Amino acid sequence: MPRHALKHYLYIIIFGTHTKAGRAFDIALIVAIFSSLAVLVLESVPSIASPWKMELRYLEYAFTALFSIEYLLRLYCSPKPSAYAKSFYGVVDLLAILPTYLAFFFPGASFMGVIRLLRVMRIFRVLKLVRYLQDSNILLRSLLMARRKILIFFSTVGILVTIFGSLIFVIEGPANGFTSIPKSIYWAIVTITTVGYGDIVPQTHLGKALASLTMLLGYSILAVPTGIITAELNKEMNAHKTLVKCPNCSRAGHDSDAIHCKHCGGELAEPDKRIVKQ
Amino acid sequence: MPRHALKHYLYIIIFGTHTKAGRAFDIALIVAIFSSLAVLVLESVPSIASPWKMELRYLEYAFTALFSIEYLLRLYCSPKPSAYAKSFYGVVDLLAILPTYLAFFFPGASFMGVIRLLRVMRIFRVLKLVRYLQDSNILLRSLLMARRKILIFFSTVGILVTIFGSLIFVIEGPANGFTSIPKSIYWAIVTITTVGYGDIVPQTHLGKALASLTMLLGYSILAVPTGIITAELNKEMNAHKTLVKCPNCSRAGHDSDAIHCKHCGGELAEPDKRIVKQ
Amino acid sequence: MPRHALKHYLYIIIFGTHTKAGRAFDIALIVAIFSSLAVLVLESVPSIASPWKMELRYLEYAFTALFSIEYLLRLYCSPKPSAYAKSFYGVVDLLAILPTYLAFFFPGASFMGVIRLLRVMRIFRVLKLVRYLQDSNILLRSLLMARRKILIFFSTVGILVTIFGSLIFVIEGPANGFTSIPKSIYWAIVTITTVGYGDIVPQTHLGKALASLTMLLGYSILAVPTGIITAELNKEMNAHKTLVKCPNCSRAGHDSDAIHCKHCGGELAEPDKRIVKQ
Amino acid sequence: MPRHALKHYLYIIIFGTHTKAGRAFDIALIVAIFSSLAVLVLESVPSIASPWKMELRYLEYAFTALFSIEYLLRLYCSPKPSAYAKSFYGVVDLLAILPTYLAFFFPGASFMGVIRLLRVMRIFRVLKLVRYLQDSNILLRSLLMARRKILIFFSTVGILVTIFGSLIFVIEGPANGFTSIPKSIYWAIVTITTVGYGDIVPQTHLGKALASLTMLLGYSILAVPTGIITAELNKEMNAHKTLVKCPNCSRAGHDSDAIHCKHCGGELAEPDKRIVKQ
Repeated sequence: MPRHALKHYLYIIIFGTHTKAGRAFDIALIVAIFSSLAVLVLESVPSIASPWKMELRYLEYAFTALFSIEYLLRLYCSPKPSAYAKSFYGVVDLLAILPTYLAFFFPGASFMGVIRLLRVMRIFRVLKLVRYLQDSNILLRSLLMARRKILIFFSTVGILVTIFGSLIFVIEGPANGFTSIPKSIYWAIVTITTVGYGDIVPQTHLGKALASLTMLLGYSILAVPTGIITAELNKEMNAHKTLVKCPNCSRAGHDSDAIHCKHCGGELAEPDKRIVKQ
Repeated sequence: MPRHALKHYLYIIIFGTHTKAGRAFDIALIVAIFSSLAVLVLESVPSIASPWKMELRYLEYAFTALFSIEYLLRLYCSPKPSAYAKSFYGVVDLLAILPTYLAFFFPGASFMGVIRLLRVMRIFRVLKLVRYLQDSNILLRSLLMARRKILIFFSTVGILVTIFGSLIFVIEGPANGFTSIPKSIYWAIVTITTVGYGDIVPQTHLGKALASLTMLLGYSILAVPTGIITAELNKEMNAHKTLVKCPNCSRAGHDSDAIHCKHCGGELAEPDKRIVKQ
Repeated sequence: MPRHALKHYLYIIIFGTHTKAGRAFDIALIVAIFSSLAVLVLESVPSIASPWKMELRYLEYAFTALFSIEYLLRLYCSPKPSAYAKSFYGVVDLLAILPTYLAFFFPGASFMGVIRLLRVMRIFRVLKLVRYLQDSNILLRSLLMARRKILIFFSTVGILVTIFGSLIFVIEGPANGFTSIPKSIYWAIVTITTVGYGDIVPQTHLGKALASLTMLLGYSILAVPTGIITAELNKEMNAHKTLVKCPNCSRAGHDSDAIHCKHCGGELAEPDKRIVKQ
Repeated sequence: MPRHALKHYLYIIIFGTHTKAGRAFDIALIVAIFSSLAVLVLESVPSIASPWKMELRYLEYAFTALFSIEYLLRLYCSPKPSAYAKSFYGVVDLLAILPTYLAFFFPGASFMGVIRLLRVMRIFRVLKLVRYLQDSNILLRSLLMARRKILIFFSTVGILVTIFGSLIFVIEGPANGFTSIPKSIYWAIVTITTVGYGDIVPQTHLGKALASLTMLLGYSILAVPTGIITAELNKEMNAHKTLVKCPNCSRAGHDSDAIHCKHCGGELAEPDKRIVKQ
């Protein structure tokens, strides 16, 4: 087999998902990712890490070797290696193997554990499977369409949390656990999101009244993002239902009762003959 | 009465819900299930279980005998006993009586209490009542239609929880209660779902900042499944409405209580005879 | 003024809300209800109740006298006194004054405080104001339309809570605070509703895993009732928007694009000439 | 440059957002507001405030001087200075500088810290940016349209909280931490909003049963405001869509990006010239 044919064959297996071999590669990759994550998690449990220290370290080396080979193969078979290396997944793939090498050469660097966790982001690659694409697109598009409303919502929550946190700081004060405004804002976030740890709670009557107001506000304000996303999803789904293209200008987004294209005015196909891709 | 007539008669009473006797049997079964559950619950309360030990045990034996008879009768009158025995409800019915027999022959096996709890699943059978069928179908169909979006949602939550749990483990460390990554992921789930027990809470400033981010994310991400299910329910309800066609002008979109076509005034088929594709 | 005219005049003031005097009476009643509630609340605060004991008691007597007069006047001017006395509000009005009289004659009966709280239900009467009627009707009708779905939802939550509560009882046991199944079910409710007091928390690894599952389930199951109510509200609002009555059979509920009445087939008024009450 | 031209020029920069200078001024103002807030927050953290005491105070004086100049300039260039001074933002602007002056002349008045927090409200001014106007208008209009339903919802929550709080006070009593009805109502709010601090929890069996009911109620009642706001947002979005009429066939229902009528193919008015009733 000539080199460029091998390259293309590898490309189809490693980057593609349509062939049987491509799908098998994806599944093997998912298994490897989850196994390497399990090793990472088990390493953090003292009762397991102590007796199995060496076994876990060798497993870690094995997975790093595996992911290193995968990274090199991707670089090799990619039509544009530099474009892959600079892409989101290229960087994630590199970050997934780098920490182990760094820890090998600089044994004292314990903070590398954080970067190693980026390996979990490799899962996103597997989510790219074709059949799931369409639905996640609708979700993403809804979030994107609603991004201004969501921004306004988060700004409002930020302002409310700053105001309530500062007020409770003035009312309760350091004596009751509200030692600074940042800590009080932390309390306000814990309260307005209805998490309610209970590590810092108001002690005075006025503080409790303010806390009650914060809770009720947080409780009802939750309705706003839900309403926004639901309304956007509704709109997206309706738009999606009628993926009819104009035979004249090829643009989509027509209502189900449309007879003429809303963009160019050309006549659309009859409703029964419209091809709707699902 | 010949044997096959008796069999059919029993079948209609035990499996059917349309006759008066069938409905009476269902109600008696619900009462028996709830009573046996009450015995199970009371057995676990020390202040009640001590003085009433024998009474509760005899009641338990009585309910087991009752459910055993019911199981044998179902096996007897079912047209295909083996199919019933292998069905979901057949297995549940068997599991509801087995634990008591096993506990009788192997007195030391206290873990049987778990299996006995499967008796609660018998309640599902009673939910099969005809008048509730339609609405629960819409609910189930909405969940089924949205299963890909829900899967994507849960994968996203899983990835977020792993990332945030690992980060807080690195930031806070074992000294502040975050003794391992699994425990830290447990904290992340407690936080992102806005439950907030407060048994493990961040102590450092950076940890509190990360916790705030987790809360706000969990708070707003809740809007996504709600939006998905609402949008699906909306679609299902509209679909339900458009499945009846006028026999005169063939146009759809009639309400469920419509008698005449709203477009041409022609009479629609009677509600009971309308063909609604499920 | 003759007696029957006085009766009718009183009736319009006390039961009506359309006249100026009627509205003034309603506002005075609201003020009286809130003031009497304030007295009730203040009586429970030790630091206030001790120095102001007699003043609060006299205020309580004054409000009881006031509500007694109101009750007698309602009985007097009502066209059918017995119908009023048996109605929901008649019973609430009686219960609002009874406790004070009972406490006066049986001074030791402290449990009367509970019944006195029924006074708060008098607030519902004021909610009957005409302008708020229409909207609360839509809310109630949506809940009513969705009652089967809501029942199915609550049954599901009940079954889940029983199963998870029993499982955690078997997993954690009395040593970790889960002393009985009822207490474990209480924990399951605290967790599935995302309240999360933190008074009982799982200590074992398996218990924490089960708790995580309960939280995620509770977190996502919340989307179901929201979806149900939103979809019903949407439907109700759409139905409401087209409160067009058929000129032939006087029935409403037509879609905005209907030309013929869906009930009798009679022709509807042209869309532009339809009178829609808002 | 003559005085009135200078005035108008300043007006366009300070109050306007369409010119490059106007937008630069807005961004500088946002930066100044956030910086002054940071100073405020850092002052409250003991570990930072002690060593940097003088630096923070001088920064505070600098920001107050800056905002004072801005306030005077706004007064100067406003076409109607008195109208600006009495407007919401005029009062906010004044309150943002007053506390520092008051603290300067009355050094002992520590409560001024609260009023200084009003500076955070200046952020609202910046939200007035043109491109965010339309979406926040839809949000506000939805809330406004639903205000009666929201009022009914909050009244219901208020009544429920009073009833449950009083009941738990009678059931649990001062011995279990429920020392007064206001404190018990605070507990009911903490529970019904699913915050669940855990600082006060029921100890008796009956109290736990009541708490469970409160939680389930709070859990499901949350669906109501969400449903209301979603339904209103849906309506608002649809209304927005139906306000444009085709000049040829006079039919509505066009998307915001439509150029041709979907019914007859006639050209629609240009998007900017469409008359959309607000």
